[in-house]
Amino acid sequence: MPCIIEMLSVGNELLLGNTINTNASWMAAQATSVGAEVSRITTVGDNLRDISNAVRESLRRRPNFLIITGGIGPTFDDMTLKGVAKALNKHVQLNRRAVELIRGHYERRFKGKPMKLTGPRLKMARIPEGGVPVHNPVGTAPAVLLSADRTQVFCLPGVPSEAKAIFHESLLGKIRSRAGGRYFVERWSTIKGIMESNLAPIIDRIMTRTPGVYIKSHPRGVENGVSKIELHFSTFSSSEATAHRTVRGAISAMKKELRRQPGKVRMTE
Amino acid sequence: MPCIIEMLSVGNELLLGNTINTNASWMAAQATSVGAEVSRITTVGDNLRDISNAVRESLRRRPNFLIITGGIGPTFDDMTLKGVAKALNKHVQLNRRAVELIRGHYERRFKGKPMKLTGPRLKMARIPEGGVPVHNPVGTAPAVLLSADRTQVFCLPGVPSEAKAIFHESLLGKIRSRAGGRYFVERWSTIKGIMESNLAPIIDRIMTRTPGVYIKSHPRGVENGVSKIELHFSTFSSSEATAHRTVRGAISAMKKELRRQPGKVRMTE
Repeated sequence: MPCIIEMLSVGNELLLGNTINTNASWMAAQATSVGAEVSRITTVGDNLRDISNAVRESLRRRPNFLIITGGIGPTFDDMTLKGVAKALNKHVQLNRRAVELIRGHYERRFKGKPMKLTGPRLKMARIPEGGVPVHNPVGTAPAVLLSADRTQVFCLPGVPSEAKAIFHESLLGKIRSRAGGRYFVERWSTIKGIMESNLAPIIDRIMTRTPGVYIKSHPRGVENGVSKIELHFSTFSSSEATAHRTVRGAISAMKKELRRQPGKVRMTE
Repeated sequence: MPCIIEMLSVGNELLLGNTINTNASWMAAQATSVGAEVSRITTVGDNLRDISNAVRESLRRRPNFLIITGGIGPTFDDMTLKGVAKALNKHVQLNRRAVELIRGHYERRFKGKPMKLTGPRLKMARIPEGGVPVHNPVGTAPAVLLSADRTQVFCLPGVPSEAKAIFHESLLGKIRSRAGGRYFVERWSTIKGIMESNLAPIIDRIMTRTPGVYIKSHPRGVENGVSKIELHFSTFSSSEATAHRTVRGAISAMKKELRRQPGKVRMTE
């Protein structure tokens, strides 16, 4: 059984288009590299109803992990934790361990100088009942882990450095062990001199003859009348050796097919 | 009534994390700039069931536009148009106008040399019943426009240069006229020397006193013990002058508030 992951990115800046969702692709690449499969990425704004609806819809699809980024900071429009609570029909409540994590963060940062735990600071410790706060090695807001039926829900900060640090420290290991012994192998190559519409039946043939391989063509435009296409070969397998063999086999088959094509078709890895 | 837009990005490469979804943020910024509001962005893989489910779910939320990118090319895994047809309980069928657009593209590209309309090429002309093919000024696959209840569904290629060209040529004008006379104004500024948790109540106060303004804080880390935060001020309004006044007013109010803060707090635009 593959380990299925959904992601939910929360933030008006993503919908206004002034921030590119690099968190989602970075995490997707990380999760894929340890054998998990990302099935959907959803982006909504800082809006209680949209967050809770998106969480509810995702849980209904029963992924193994739902990774939520953004909206767990101190400002009024950070409402991810409330949205998750609403989706799970739970309340948010002040979590003592989260308070300690926040206090510890300020103490380290200000070298023991006491910081008042004001409303906005304590807000970051108000998490859904049953949630477990998770250490943030870079910023203030703790991440939050929750179990919902068969899905582990992780709420991470939206600041990329914080999301990445927590992902590495506390999440990647869990994904790896859940994905247990599935391997992902990928290779890129570039083909010049053939149009995608002529490459399509070749890709189709190789995929039929090489079970488990996935080949995706990315047209990269035409230079001096010559089409350039990048090809991505990838596979998931329970054996690393098989995964490598599958991808190597598909690449050899592609080279052989391209040698039979009319005109000057070149493939480079 | 605001013009509400949803986007659906289709492509395994987005879920594998090897491609960053720049199409979505670029289109979101364009749509926002003409006064429309993007409410959700969904990403799914090249998978008929996931595509049709995502389309169906989106149409249930009744946005004015659903903009789909990716999966309309010649390869076997380009199945967006089939997925849209399935969601609308329609069939795909060979569209004569789409065939002409594809033939015209090859004729222009190969200076009149006749190109055989092979299976993969004709595949790009197989569109849902009732769909209207739309000229692609850059690539081969025509875009497709469909009406579904109150939603206009646009299917664009995933190749960024093609998506952008079609968006500008055929879509932005429709969005602008539907958003009819709503204006979006935004300004960025940088604040140094205050933590986000101390800025939070100030943002809250200014937003309460300045109806319609939205202020989002983006923490950009700590340099030599000094916090850096970028602030994004934005508003939608039916009057451009009001929109500018609202943002200017919020920025002045922020400056005034920050002068009252202890320590050295600096705001630059």
